[in-house]
Amino acid sequence: MKHMEPPSIRVSEIFGPTIQGEGVLIGLPTVFVRTGGCDYRCSWCDSLHAVDNRFRGDWQAMSVEQIWEQVSALSGGEPLTVSLSGGNPAIQPLGELIEFGHREGYRFALETQGSVARDWFSTLDTLVLSPKPPSSQMSTDWARFEACLAVAQGRPLTVLKLVVFDDEDYAYAKDAAARYPHLPVYLQPGNHTPPSPDRDDVIVDMTGVMRRMKWLIEKVTQDRWFDARVLPQLHMLLWGNTRGV
Amino acid sequence: MKHMEPPSIRVSEIFGPTIQGEGVLIGLPTVFVRTGGCDYRCSWCDSLHAVDNRFRGDWQAMSVEQIWEQVSALSGGEPLTVSLSGGNPAIQPLGELIEFGHREGYRFALETQGSVARDWFSTLDTLVLSPKPPSSQMSTDWARFEACLAVAQGRPLTVLKLVVFDDEDYAYAKDAAARYPHLPVYLQPGNHTPPSPDRDDVIVDMTGVMRRMKWLIEKVTQDRWFDARVLPQLHMLLWGNTRGV
Ligand code: SF4
Ligand code: SF4
Repeated sequence: MKHMEPPSIRVSEIFGPTIQGEGVLIGLPTVFVRTGGCDYRCSWCDSLHAVDNRFRGDWQAMSVEQIWEQVSALSGGEPLTVSLSGGNPAIQPLGELIEFGHREGYRFALETQGSVARDWFSTLDTLVLSPKPPSSQMSTDWARFEACLAVAQGRPLTVLKLVVFDDEDYAYAKDAAARYPHLPVYLQPGNHTPPSPDRDDVIVDMTGVMRRMKWLIEKVTQDRWFDARVLPQLHMLLWGNTRGV
Repeated sequence: MKHMEPPSIRVSEIFGPTIQGEGVLIGLPTVFVRTGGCDYRCSWCDSLHAVDNRFRGDWQAMSVEQIWEQVSALSGGEPLTVSLSGGNPAIQPLGELIEFGHREGYRFALETQGSVARDWFSTLDTLVLSPKPPSSQMSTDWARFEACLAVAQGRPLTVLKLVVFDDEDYAYAKDAAARYPHLPVYLQPGNHTPPSPDRDDVIVDMTGVMRRMKWLIEKVTQDRWFDARVLPQLHMLLWGNTRGV
């Protein structure tokens, strides 16, 4: 019998390299490790295949070595930034994976809503905290959110990413930014036509996406919120709702 | 008679705030000060109205105070990043404008091909050096380019921005990046349907733009060029070839 079980990480999908389509690392080549499971159920979640228990059967319990084999193969052994996403990747034991990858020269970015804090956040290269606005139907526990900032100890590049569907979301984003004035802010218009977990071919309402992007730019500039960045979901503009690209 | 004439800056247009659509500051609200005149004539120049002598009559010789009046009005007196573009803004005397704006808390980003070096480059907040690839029909004088880096003295955030139309441009981009391994690299697919200086309504070949963007992402990822960023011209996706947004 083994002395210690290797940590088992629930993985929904590993794919890439492709470019990061959102936020602070937009345009950067990356391999995604998407974990399965989330403590939230956002009304407009665009990753339901990594959230909904219906898809639990598609998730694989993997060891660090098994994950690394895939990341390494996809990147041809050439170090790059690995994007840890979900679901909520913070509910998985990812500390060892990060340590392992760092030894090989890889970098790690993680995106989470900020509901679960982990010691290993301090070992990340980039931490994207994306608290969910009212339109998600979730409510933010700011004490938990602050615990995420506390464990990160200011070591990774830490940024706020806020999805904005409407005026209420915009007010929430301004409030979140005001709470943490030292964090760079990335705003992203919401996608009203998110991918369906069952189908790969839901057509993105591109005109609607562009209209909301323009609306958000106008809000931000009229409001003179001059240190916020407004960015679209680039992968969605390029590939629509197709998964794995 | 005045003791000293105020520096006269040739301005093609001042507009904003809108978001920066390209490169390292993508998504950031900014006011553009586009100067008139360029020492290059790129085959695919997308700013001919600020380059071609035919449009010289549209350019205005302005003092620092006159420019600042407009920037200040557009930004409502709230400090933001001013984007100095052209034409080649390096052929204008912009040092005093930058000094003036800095005193008011504004920041300055300048984009130039790197053919003319100015002492005041060192006072910029962001310097985007965009040497022109073979498809432009221009040839790069690397000694002059390096003079730009030298005068900047490493003070502004300095990045390389490279437009890529084809394989030859891609090879040029790789070579440029290899020359300056310490500079972050931003790659941008070329626009085969640039705006016409005479007309505001040239339709952008959006499908073509997206196809070239995907082609470039594939090149970069297959090539394992994992620290290059690939970004589109966001303003073009949002507003097509309409000017002044
Ligand atoms: S936190 Fe993210 S993954 Fe979880 S339900 Fe919300 S959008 Fe989906
Ligand atoms: S350097 Fe820029 S502004 Fe000058 S001709 Fe080339 S593309 Fe146009």
